Amino acid sequence: MTEKTNKLKARLPRGLADRGPAEIAATRRMLEAIRQVYERYGFEPVETPEIEYTDALGKFLPDQDRPNEGVFSFQDDDEQWLSLRYDLTAPLARYVAENFDALPKPYRSYRYGWVFRNEKPGPGRYRQFMQFDADTVGSASPAADAEMCMMAADTMEALGIQRGQYVVKVNNRKVLDGVMESVGLGGEENAGKRLTVLRAIDKLDRLGPQSVELLLGRGRKDDSGDFTKGADLSSDQIHEIMTLMASRPDPMSIGESLSDLELAGSTFVSGDISVGPIGRMFFSSERFTEPGPNRIPITNRATIKKLRAHFSGSDLITQGLDELEQIADHARAGAYGTKRILIDPSVVRGLEYYTGPVYEVELLLDTKDDKGRPVRFGSVGGGGRYDGLISRFRGEPVPATGFSIGVSRLQAALMLLGKLDNKPEPGPVVVTVFDPDRIADYQGMVSKLRAANIRAEMYLGSGKFGPQMKYADKRGSPCAVIQGGDEKAKGEVQIKDLILGATLTAIKDRDEYLKKQAEAQFAVPEDKLVEEVRKLLDRHGIRWH
Amino acid sequence: MTEKTNKLKARLPRGLADRGPAEIAATRRMLEAIRQVYERYGFEPVETPEIEYTDALGKFLPDQDRPNEGVFSFQDDDEQWLSLRYDLTAPLARYVAENFDALPKPYRSYRYGWVFRNEKPGPGRYRQFMQFDADTVGSASPAADAEMCMMAADTMEALGIQRGQYVVKVNNRKVLDGVMESVGLGGEENAGKRLTVLRAIDKLDRLGPQSVELLLGRGRKDDSGDFTKGADLSSDQIHEIMTLMASRPDPMSIGESLSDLELAGSTFVSGDISVGPIGRMFFSSERFTEPGPNRIPITNRATIKKLRAHFSGSDLITQGLDELEQIADHARAGAYGTKRILIDPSVVRGLEYYTGPVYEVELLLDTKDDKGRPVRFGSVGGGGRYDGLISRFRGEPVPATGFSIGVSRLQAALMLLGKLDNKPEPGPVVVTVFDPDRIADYQGMVSKLRAANIRAEMYLGSGKFGPQMKYADKRGSPCAVIQGGDEKAKGEVQIKDLILGATLTAIKDRDEYLKKQAEAQFAVPEDKLVEEVRKLLDRHGIRWH
Repeated sequence: MTEKTNKLKARLPRGLADRGPAEIAATRRMLEAIRQVYERYGFEPVETPEIEYTDALGKFLPDQDRPNEGVFSFQDDDEQWLSLRYDLTAPLARYVAENFDALPKPYRSYRYGWVFRNEKPGPGRYRQFMQFDADTVGSASPAADAEMCMMAADTMEALGIQRGQYVVKVNNRKVLDGVMESVGLGGEENAGKRLTVLRAIDKLDRLGPQSVELLLGRGRKDDSGDFTKGADLSSDQIHEIMTLMASRPDPMSIGESLSDLELAGSTFVSGDISVGPIGRMFFSSERFTEPGPNRIPITNRATIKKLRAHFSGSDLITQGLDELEQIADHARAGAYGTKRILIDPSVVRGLEYYTGPVYEVELLLDTKDDKGRPVRFGSVGGGGRYDGLISRFRGEPVPATGFSIGVSRLQAALMLLGKLDNKPEPGPVVVTVFDPDRIADYQGMVSKLRAANIRAEMYLGSGKFGPQMKYADKRGSPCAVIQGGDEKAKGEVQIKDLILGATLTAIKDRDEYLKKQAEAQFAVPEDKLVEEVRKLLDRHGIRWH
Repeated sequence: MTEKTNKLKARLPRGLADRGPAEIAATRRMLEAIRQVYERYGFEPVETPEIEYTDALGKFLPDQDRPNEGVFSFQDDDEQWLSLRYDLTAPLARYVAENFDALPKPYRSYRYGWVFRNEKPGPGRYRQFMQFDADTVGSASPAADAEMCMMAADTMEALGIQRGQYVVKVNNRKVLDGVMESVGLGGEENAGKRLTVLRAIDKLDRLGPQSVELLLGRGRKDDSGDFTKGADLSSDQIHEIMTLMASRPDPMSIGESLSDLELAGSTFVSGDISVGPIGRMFFSSERFTEPGPNRIPITNRATIKKLRAHFSGSDLITQGLDELEQIADHARAGAYGTKRILIDPSVVRGLEYYTGPVYEVELLLDTKDDKGRPVRFGSVGGGGRYDGLISRFRGEPVPATGFSIGVSRLQAALMLLGKLDNKPEPGPVVVTVFDPDRIADYQGMVSKLRAANIRAEMYLGSGKFGPQMKYADKRGSPCAVIQGGDEKAKGEVQIKDLILGATLTAIKDRDEYLKKQAEAQFAVPEDKLVEEVRKLLDRHGIRWH
């Protein structure tokens, strides 16, 4: 009784998850597919540990105002603060700074691994999740950003997501910064306001434009009644920013039948990108509609041209749009149309450290959850240029751009979309223990099967024959091997085909049933065991070598 | 100036390491080899997160007296203590307890991942390292332990370690516990002493028998002058324990020419296992000697027989030896001789939670470090039966046994032994940027190469032609692609074979040199680029598909 009440409760901390065979196998396949694309692009692997000095990681998480918020931290014996990495970019910056002279420049590298966020967990939101990153350090050229976008597109297709089911959206922080500057939000004194604007825009897809307008203005009360203070911009300032947002094209309206590159590389937007004060022409509630009659095909070049016409008079904007144009040119040179790589001025990315082009991969597929409610996946990866992150260590500018796939998030999306093979692997051949005194004989059979590369095990429990067969069923075994005294005397073993056996209950005809039953369990000479099990596995299409 | 002095120092916390391409590739190959063996044995993957509740992990680390010592811990928002896992066994126990009814029993599973120890780092001793575990839960049968030992042996061979270069040593905690009981060290009041004895014996290989004797007695002063208090046993007690230790066979003395199983499954030990008070007949200083004239071949059965004769009169010893005998019988039934699986009464394993059979894999190879000093690798993996770990949660006995490979440690050993392919992968084809205005053309070439599954990249730096070729060299590129204005006008590209080019300096003969030089750089029509690069890669045996 005391022991019962004293016993520990076996439980996982919230926001953490165990993973079973199907999930692990799917991750392995995903990682291998991503790795092959990154290798083809010339990137090489490098890995850093999961623990870093807290100050080396910096404080760049979105929506975190207090120091160390969002990060798991602890003190080392020498009182220095350590943290679990919250992404793979900050540790890479430390690595590159520490090994700068030994590395080729530009330095292209990739890595995957677990990252940790000490945040409030929610549905599909974990405190440990996997990212797969690629980074190019030492190139200031927009060609490096363009390469990331092309690689992101290739990766999605390598993962079985078809063209038109995803889009890589590209923007440039300089454009937004330039627009803010042009409406009087430049300078150090407005840094806080700019950050608030950034975070508001980052919620555009999730909350919709009306909420974002509120967050740019006085603030917004959410459904639970919590009030988030806004950026307190004037209505003119809000209008200009919302106009920029509304200039984004709608990737869902790309015509599937267009095959010519310039046309495949086109999308539809309203003829006039300027919007009224409500500014909701293409926002999320309307994202999944059919192309409207007012929409005409445009190219990335056209998007940039319109942005140039509307937002002129700032060097920063011009520089930002020039870079975007170069990215668009590279994409076209690589034969990546706007169906794959799309300039979208509403993309900002939540992390603070981006300084130039930013990009994100959006899944355009939707599905329903188990309650029939529509599920939008949104961003499954992204990145951008972070020219300041390495110079924190080096004291000199080091340009860098990188892309990160949210592996856990993408896997959850692919799983819901039925795009991941979720079938469990066939179980092992189970050698049953009919006579416990002859366990060494059974062990010998198992060893022979394993030596022939056949997945096999001996039943190790204490159950009688019935439970042993139930165990074999639960393991998904293709067959069981049985040897009682009679078989031993004849130098034989029985093989029970559990896959065929499972079909027997459906047979109505008596003769047919008896015939199949005989096929489903048969005796073979003991020295033919390996050969006969191989034949059985071949019959069921199970790989054994 | 201020910026310079304010800049962060890029540094890794002590005891943590970055990993480069060769190391990562070697780990991947190792994990895949291990995984295939575990799958063949019928084990299925399951993974737990890296963070658990501190109380769920328990305090089972060796040599840690203070609570939470050796573990990285931090408090959650709700004040509950969390820890990074220090091994993969304690989290598995939590997982099994939490999902007990849904799992097949016995439950065979495997997993690999990083574990963390907040210990003093040293050479080859890290605070983050990788383990690869397999566990069988729900079987009390020594057949389950025997299976672990056979799987450990198969795994070593799958990793390229030949038979005779490793041995799986097996013991049973019950034997040592029984011996301690028989010399008056039983009972709750001696639990502390028994733990001290365990820890002393665990240092046998590292410190040698004289030091262990001191640790069993008053204590020992190490080279640095630090004094470790001993278990304070009487000389009779020490003698009995050291006699048990001295009964271990010497795996290094197995004759390589013995091929018959019973003989291959034999080893040499001295005819008499009883030793004098010094008790150093087969200890580490003598481990690497040739078989001596007094040594005769014996089997695991013979080892057990001798132990039975010397250590009688305790039920616990009898039970322990019976279990060892069953393990030996299973091994022999599976055709695993003592060259692979060897009963060795000196094996204890450092972790406190083992309750029965314990086993460890020892590498028998030695090598020299870069200063010419001999390096012994010792244990690269091990495990044992931990019947109490899951019952902490369940309040009922749950038998379990498991095996863990120290992947990082084994990899370091294989690297030193030259058993890991440490050759870097060939680099990507580098398309140089001869004319920066035509960067989109170069991008187009790269995209075509990549679309043909050829590892390729465009030079993204700002260097002129010279630095671009140096970059290609540093990346290990097989060839560079060059297109200046002249080539463009002719619709051609130049391909520079960098592998062939690297051999040119060694050529003395002028005609030979000019001939090879012409072969090492040649023009091809632009639309034949992919085809010609493929031919070049084939010539050098580089896989491109």
